[in-house]
Amino acid sequence: MARVVECRTRIRYADTDQMGVVHHAKYLEYFEIGRTEYMRRRGLSYAEVERRGIFLALVEGHIRWRRAGRYDGEISIRTWMEELSGAKVKFRYEVLDERGDTLADGWTVLGSVNGDGRAVRIPAWLRESLEEDA
Amino acid sequence: MARVVECRTRIRYADTDQMGVVHHAKYLEYFEIGRTEYMRRRGLSYAEVERRGIFLALVEGHIRWRRAGRYDGEISIRTWMEELSGAKVKFRYEVLDERGDTLADGWTVLGSVNGDGRAVRIPAWLRESLEEDA
Amino acid sequence: MARVVECRTRIRYADTDQMGVVHHAKYLEYFEIGRTEYMRRRGLSYAEVERRGIFLALVEGHIRWRRAGRYDGEISIRTWMEELSGAKVKFRYEVLDERGDTLADGWTVLGSVNGDGRAVRIPAWLRESLEEDA
Amino acid sequence: MARVVECRTRIRYADTDQMGVVHHAKYLEYFEIGRTEYMRRRGLSYAEVERRGIFLALVEGHIRWRRAGRYDGEISIRTWMEELSGAKVKFRYEVLDERGDTLADGWTVLGSVNGDGRAVRIPAWLRESLEEDA
Repeated sequence: MARVVECRTRIRYADTDQMGVVHHAKYLEYFEIGRTEYMRRRGLSYAEVERRGIFLALVEGHIRWRRAGRYDGEISIRTWMEELSGAKVKFRYEVLDERGDTLADGWTVLGSVNGDGRAVRIPAWLRESLEEDA
Repeated sequence: MARVVECRTRIRYADTDQMGVVHHAKYLEYFEIGRTEYMRRRGLSYAEVERRGIFLALVEGHIRWRRAGRYDGEISIRTWMEELSGAKVKFRYEVLDERGDTLADGWTVLGSVNGDGRAVRIPAWLRESLEEDA
Repeated sequence: MARVVECRTRIRYADTDQMGVVHHAKYLEYFEIGRTEYMRRRGLSYAEVERRGIFLALVEGHIRWRRAGRYDGEISIRTWMEELSGAKVKFRYEVLDERGDTLADGWTVLGSVNGDGRAVRIPAWLRESLEEDA
Repeated sequence: MARVVECRTRIRYADTDQMGVVHHAKYLEYFEIGRTEYMRRRGLSYAEVERRGIFLALVEGHIRWRRAGRYDGEISIRTWMEELSGAKVKFRYEVLDERGDTLADGWTVLGSVNGDGRAVRIPAWLRESLEEDA
């Protein structure tokens, strides 16, 4: 279950704030990029999951900001699944800079909801995809 | 048709970038805040418009950035409708700082679309609301 | 130390995502709005703190998303200080919708850094302001 | 002067809004990604330009939104320089989806300013880099 998926992206200028570094809220967007890539590598894109009527909504999250990220830096986002229960899934993330130093890490728990926003069990097709060895 | 609606909001820290000023793309969000308020003052919130199945999608826009906006500044957003045709509406905007200096101004044209993203005529109930004297 | 500061703002259209609700990362921006207001009410705006060469950088945070926030909703952000140590300050937040239901709550720890990004003790003038009864 | 630089990026979930498509303001961020890449390919990153004390601040811009961009789509951003005068530079952009359809196009004019925000002539080293054949 601990297969780590890694992907890369560049820090946008718009991601920075007047402290001269990446605005702290952007790390939740980077985690989200990692989650998107985690699912794609398992053969089921999150876009397709939503088309099938299932949404993974954020329930809880924790972040540690360790170093300042800089504009135009190429970051690596490492994502892995830590827990999968009936209606929830927990992911862990690390965001690294070009030298391999950790900028931030953390985790989020997402709950499976249907189009009306009601909690539903994670369907078998999604569960299998999340657990599959990439 | 040139009734100007004015509203105020504060610049968020997250709106700034590493140049130490408001990131230029945020002015499109400020214009959008102005448009939201313009419609609410006319008695029909844009949230309600979407619930009725009509969406106003951006078609074209123009911005002049004149001065740097600063974190925590209280800005005034002035919005007025300039043209209303069969399926399009054009708004103009000015964003002013606390001293009344213009930070940015511009205009956007929005097209009326239905839930499938197809262009449709602006319905009578929306047209009447947009034209109504506030 | 547990004086709660409350402020209000409206959810921007740009704050939503394709799930039809406020994007989860925006709650960190709402927390930040609350922090800004907390400090202003104590007589020392955070903008002024930065002008004096002190920056409060995010170190750690935790969020629980409880309900979906909706476009154009007027939210209340409640902010209070929970701990103040040599170089760190911990704030707690609640974001409520118009009916008083909690959309999200959480906390963040911020570290005092100078213009070079180095950790420094929170200066006496800032400490006094943070602790002052508003 | 019309050398076109093309780069690719994926649409983030956070880039979407409740209309189910990319929020219109994000195209200014995509233009900015294109500009960043344009400069890097010419051998002088914009990050380095700022380190040398020159900032390119937005002065004027125009956008036509042509089609809806979708979450997780891989977009191509084409950027080229159209004009270069004493203190200003004008770029043009096209954002294309995976099928080569144009999502948006437009242009921006940027003015060269120093660290105090004052307009200054574009220095020779920057001018040469902008004009260089990539």
